[in-house]
Amino acid sequence: MPSSSISIPAEAITAETCAALLDAVRAATPLVQCLTNHVVSGFTANVLLALGAAPAMVDIPDEAGAFAPVASGVLINLGTLGGRQPEAMREAAAAAHAAGTPWLLDPVAVGALPVRTPLAAELLGAHPTLIRGNASEIAALAGAGQAGRGVDATLSVDAASAPARELAGRAQTVVAVSGPVDLITDGSAVLRVGNGHELLTRVTGAGCALGAVMVAFAAVADDPLTAAVAAHCAYGVAAEDAAAGAAGPGSFAVALLDALAALTPDALVGRVRLEVAR
Amino acid sequence: MPSSSISIPAEAITAETCAALLDAVRAATPLVQCLTNHVVSGFTANVLLALGAAPAMVDIPDEAGAFAPVASGVLINLGTLGGRQPEAMREAAAAAHAAGTPWLLDPVAVGALPVRTPLAAELLGAHPTLIRGNASEIAALAGAGQAGRGVDATLSVDAASAPARELAGRAQTVVAVSGPVDLITDGSAVLRVGNGHELLTRVTGAGCALGAVMVAFAAVADDPLTAAVAAHCAYGVAAEDAAAGAAGPGSFAVALLDALAALTPDALVGRVRLEVAR
Amino acid sequence: MPSSSISIPAEAITAETCAALLDAVRAATPLVQCLTNHVVSGFTANVLLALGAAPAMVDIPDEAGAFAPVASGVLINLGTLGGRQPEAMREAAAAAHAAGTPWLLDPVAVGALPVRTPLAAELLGAHPTLIRGNASEIAALAGAGQAGRGVDATLSVDAASAPARELAGRAQTVVAVSGPVDLITDGSAVLRVGNGHELLTRVTGAGCALGAVMVAFAAVADDPLTAAVAAHCAYGVAAEDAAAGAAGPGSFAVALLDALAALTPDALVGRVRLEVAR
Repeated sequence: MPSSSISIPAEAITAETCAALLDAVRAATPLVQCLTNHVVSGFTANVLLALGAAPAMVDIPDEAGAFAPVASGVLINLGTLGGRQPEAMREAAAAAHAAGTPWLLDPVAVGALPVRTPLAAELLGAHPTLIRGNASEIAALAGAGQAGRGVDATLSVDAASAPARELAGRAQTVVAVSGPVDLITDGSAVLRVGNGHELLTRVTGAGCALGAVMVAFAAVADDPLTAAVAAHCAYGVAAEDAAAGAAGPGSFAVALLDALAALTPDALVGRVRLEVAR
Repeated sequence: MPSSSISIPAEAITAETCAALLDAVRAATPLVQCLTNHVVSGFTANVLLALGAAPAMVDIPDEAGAFAPVASGVLINLGTLGGRQPEAMREAAAAAHAAGTPWLLDPVAVGALPVRTPLAAELLGAHPTLIRGNASEIAALAGAGQAGRGVDATLSVDAASAPARELAGRAQTVVAVSGPVDLITDGSAVLRVGNGHELLTRVTGAGCALGAVMVAFAAVADDPLTAAVAAHCAYGVAAEDAAAGAAGPGSFAVALLDALAALTPDALVGRVRLEVAR
Repeated sequence: MPSSSISIPAEAITAETCAALLDAVRAATPLVQCLTNHVVSGFTANVLLALGAAPAMVDIPDEAGAFAPVASGVLINLGTLGGRQPEAMREAAAAAHAAGTPWLLDPVAVGALPVRTPLAAELLGAHPTLIRGNASEIAALAGAGQAGRGVDATLSVDAASAPARELAGRAQTVVAVSGPVDLITDGSAVLRVGNGHELLTRVTGAGCALGAVMVAFAAVADDPLTAAVAAHCAYGVAAEDAAAGAAGPGSFAVALLDALAALTPDALVGRVRLEVAR
């Protein structure tokens, strides 16, 4: 089922909805095309495999656009933009939109940097189904914030709430802001997910890989808002499980993969910390 | 010892031959030049180091061709073809062939994608010593199959048996098809290796890294058929050891490196599951 | 505090100085801009995060130079030079020097290879604050040695002592030579650090990541010599802790991240193995 723009009441998104979507991901093994940065590409692929999805790292011009209609969803992450990757991203975004393939924009460190900032603005015009970032990145993309300090958020999630909502409404997309409590909005509803763990901030690409997980959920969901929420809940609960036995950030990253693979829909239901606000 | 085209009877390849080659790898520390994709380059290098070989990631034009005659063997993996990597691959393949350095072609996701598919066909003309892929990739490279679904095989190993044998005979190379039971052929003999574990399919680059292991074995073997079989047996047994204590795909990948480093020729002998067919 | 050229007596560098600098890294969370190779970029970022620093992988032209004055320090590692990375490196080195941002050159596999060798010589002219490599690389960069065998040192640390000292004096920089016992010199003083573990040689990027750690320390130190020594001591002690519980190179790499995060200044003091020579 491709993601569509069907608007659903935020109150209809429950722990049970999240669990059902995790089940659907496992049943469909969605093929997530990733155009992402070289720092996190391996970890991102491993997160998708652990979850029960399948990665396809098709990220060069001429191939990226050809593959997007075949993929179940597309991740476009601006972390490093080596070689002709920007060109491949333009291709993939346009082809995904034309084919109705859901795609996500992760505007890493956008704000002041002179290549990624205009590229993010351009890709915003190619109708991303989902956008994910930290508070500084979302505020910068919305035109409301200063640049962050590289990949680190210097803004609180709450401070990014209004820009996120405005951006989602204007771009007709779903925006997710990562932080201690994640905020997800379609411009109208605002949901908060309390799952997750501080160790996620000590593993490179933990946020980038969440973007890939969101795409996997969007590939099997009726609407991107539910997909985004379910992805955050599943990933956050797996992070909590991983942290329980971890001795530090190294063993946590390994355990996160194990926990994603072991997470069952039934276990997820009782663990979701979800709050709906208007 | 460089790999040569010496043809040996498949029946001469035994568990003891495999164990002796593992010993030879450890004694020689072959230097494996890798031109591979950015998703798996780190894991591939770590697999080589764990095995007892040495990686050299020399993958840019002007350097790739200069280094190939110095290397003990060369891996060319088409997973991501960023920047000028295709040019570096042409250089490395030609220089390796000219110098008698064994080299392996891993035609990742070849079939329909418009950059890698013609490049794979071109590199096939540069006389690879070894070819490795899943059933869909091998069938596509042989011209006998449809494209796979990205990196996933949609064809069974048995269905790829005839194309693999035809390809190996025509290109005068050794072809290995990865699957639940791996198939290895030089166009005449067909050998099957039953070692391995399903968790290998849940770790990104597990197949790509096997290609590097095959190169390390080819660098110390008299013939590439024996090298390919021994590499599959050693890697598969290490995977079985790793799976025994793993809690999921994350801890499995870590344990695979530990198991490769701990694997002894003596332990390997009793564990090899090898079958020869004509 | 930016690193300066303040020369301090080597005898003033003690275990207590090293511990105080580790404390300073944790307090400042220095932002380390990394222009490094795709094989080790993920591991490097994770090492920085585990240590208590922050990675920023800004490595493309137009962005690399713009970011360097904002970064706390810059790592330039020549391991793979894909796409337009050399151009980005020139930018970053010049901008770092102009802004007084400390930067480190890691001349991976320099010697015979025709792209990185002249690039390393050129970057040497851009006034690196620190240089790190194995004995073969340092000797080659100093113009005193033959090329190594790829990334492996074929020279002993002692044999590189004179070239390292000469290079440091001539280029007015601090040079660190990795080996069983590491050697660090500013051209006048020579210090030796005995901390570390052999398993570091079985993990890809263990040396490259040490370069990033040196930059993090240089970002908070008054002088680069002390920074280099403290970085080697902290990293080496963490490696010893990691090796204590590791079953092989896979679990060692994971444990190294945990150990870096767990290392306290107090624990470091009693563990430093440091020797000053003239």
